[in-house]
Amino acid sequence: MLTIVVDAMGGDNAPACVIEGTIQALQESNNRFEIVLIGQSEKVEPLLAAHDISALNLRFLHAPEVVTMEDIPATAVKTKQESSLVKGLQLCKKKQAQAFVSAGNTGAQMAASLFVLGRIPGVLRPTIYAYFPRLGDGLTNIVDVGANVDCKPDNLVQFAEMLTIYQRYGAGIENPLTGLLNIGEEEGKGSEMLKQTFKLLKEADSKGKISFIGNIEGHDILKGRASIVVCDGLVGNTILKFGESIPEFLGTLFKESLNKLLASGQMDQSVAKLTTDMFKGMFEPFDVEKFGGVPFLGVDGISIVGHGRSTSRAIKNMIYMAEHMIEKRVNEHIADILSEK
Amino acid sequence: MLTIVVDAMGGDNAPACVIEGTIQALQESNNRFEIVLIGQSEKVEPLLAAHDISALNLRFLHAPEVVTMEDIPATAVKTKQESSLVKGLQLCKKKQAQAFVSAGNTGAQMAASLFVLGRIPGVLRPTIYAYFPRLGDGLTNIVDVGANVDCKPDNLVQFAEMLTIYQRYGAGIENPLTGLLNIGEEEGKGSEMLKQTFKLLKEADSKGKISFIGNIEGHDILKGRASIVVCDGLVGNTILKFGESIPEFLGTLFKESLNKLLASGQMDQSVAKLTTDMFKGMFEPFDVEKFGGVPFLGVDGISIVGHGRSTSRAIKNMIYMAEHMIEKRVNEHIADILSEK
Repeated sequence: MLTIVVDAMGGDNAPACVIEGTIQALQESNNRFEIVLIGQSEKVEPLLAAHDISALNLRFLHAPEVVTMEDIPATAVKTKQESSLVKGLQLCKKKQAQAFVSAGNTGAQMAASLFVLGRIPGVLRPTIYAYFPRLGDGLTNIVDVGANVDCKPDNLVQFAEMLTIYQRYGAGIENPLTGLLNIGEEEGKGSEMLKQTFKLLKEADSKGKISFIGNIEGHDILKGRASIVVCDGLVGNTILKFGESIPEFLGTLFKESLNKLLASGQMDQSVAKLTTDMFKGMFEPFDVEKFGGVPFLGVDGISIVGHGRSTSRAIKNMIYMAEHMIEKRVNEHIADILSEK
Repeated sequence: MLTIVVDAMGGDNAPACVIEGTIQALQESNNRFEIVLIGQSEKVEPLLAAHDISALNLRFLHAPEVVTMEDIPATAVKTKQESSLVKGLQLCKKKQAQAFVSAGNTGAQMAASLFVLGRIPGVLRPTIYAYFPRLGDGLTNIVDVGANVDCKPDNLVQFAEMLTIYQRYGAGIENPLTGLLNIGEEEGKGSEMLKQTFKLLKEADSKGKISFIGNIEGHDILKGRASIVVCDGLVGNTILKFGESIPEFLGTLFKESLNKLLASGQMDQSVAKLTTDMFKGMFEPFDVEKFGGVPFLGVDGISIVGHGRSTSRAIKNMIYMAEHMIEKRVNEHIADILSEK
């Protein structure tokens, strides 16, 4: 049976939300895997005591220290060896568990994952991607979204290769298309780094490692022209955070408009409810909690990172994502394909 | 009286839309300025003949060549000296006009403006900004949005300085706030280029040239934390094009939702119309045609660039923007302030 370590201390709503998500995952899956919940016993155990967990495949493990959102990643890994983050990853390193899940400090999780688990041989830099909604079926993945700034062409190409492997073996997309995010479509556009990346992506395409469709632009993301959008972490992080702010921004505009119509008597409460439900439904494609989180691609082990504001549902889905990564052997495929010449 | 040159051949809907916008501007403003419409006589004159322009301050000037959207900027400027673009800018250079307006090939207009008009002394690189909607009053300007990739810290600082001058003198914002777009708020975040830019922006702030609020992130753009958001042209261009694609994307989701409710009988036609009008109204903050276009900041003259798909209303508003730039003496202020040490 698979064992998944869940960081009870990670996230804005930890440990309560994490405990709830963990219990939901075990109940819903009929104890399909074992979960080791790790964190400060004085914070976690009183909350756990409020649930009947006797029938669940759940163990609790004490970790006296906590990595906070304010901790500096590189420092936290070294000074907080007794944290749930470092101890949890060490369980994976020692093969006592197959995956680690946290909604805590992303930078610290990246640093600790690299430090404790290392890289898959051949990986230059591990990366993080994000999900974006798109017209039609499926989703777009953008890579990198903040783990790597100052990327070199080789890095971007490897991000595309790793995400292609993930999409092929992990998501069942036979031939995911990769686009290079640029200021124009034509070859030769953009910075020197992007021009060089374009050439290397074409080479990777000719070797069958990716399916490269060329440069794409900002407006192509939501249109879904590519399943994999490659860019430097600065660009990807900005687009990700900008995108995340859209539902709230439009929600505010929506409420203002609705209130005006209600106040003027042009709309009644029942129509307002219908319209509000419709508006909420429109933003379902923006619901990234259905994945809960994403794996660090390139790390020699499975470390799933979630948003700080993860709900219990997001935690539950991160646990499923961990299980999925193990079962689909994504890391083994990355190791195999990167070792080919 | 001011003379403004309008490129009849620029834009997807040229020359018809350009002619209409020009006539609207002169009628609405009661001939407050003179317009020189420049373009191919065989295309423009038959369309002009359909309007009664006898009472308007309008002259037509023939230019046999046309710079198309497909032309390579640097080449077009050299090989198409008889184009409306190059000839129109030359009128400004010869002081026969005070501003040039076009919705044509942006790259070519940038190249031609630099080539014909030159830079304001002290300007390292001219730039283009864009308008973004935000919560609350006002708008956010993002700079650069594609004129400059591979920016150096000095460039970004000067973009912020020039846009601060524009906002202070051109838009009447007494103390516009500048934010540096980055992957995190803390000082020390981001690439080496951004770290260095952060230091230089702080220096510019201490000299009173800008009001720097530090690093901001993608989600701060729509929140309106800063009036001026500074970034490399690659990041700005991507965010701009991504932002421009949102109304269409959500419009598609909206129509799908509405059609489902109509088909199931949950909504009738009158409610659908009310809801549709409300939805359209929500996107008014995204209407950038009220400005029509933006000036190239740093060019030694006034060259206003508009979107390829500009309507007649956008053209009209670009003409007003040109008038505004002249009257507010924005370029003179840029020259004065950049010459200070």
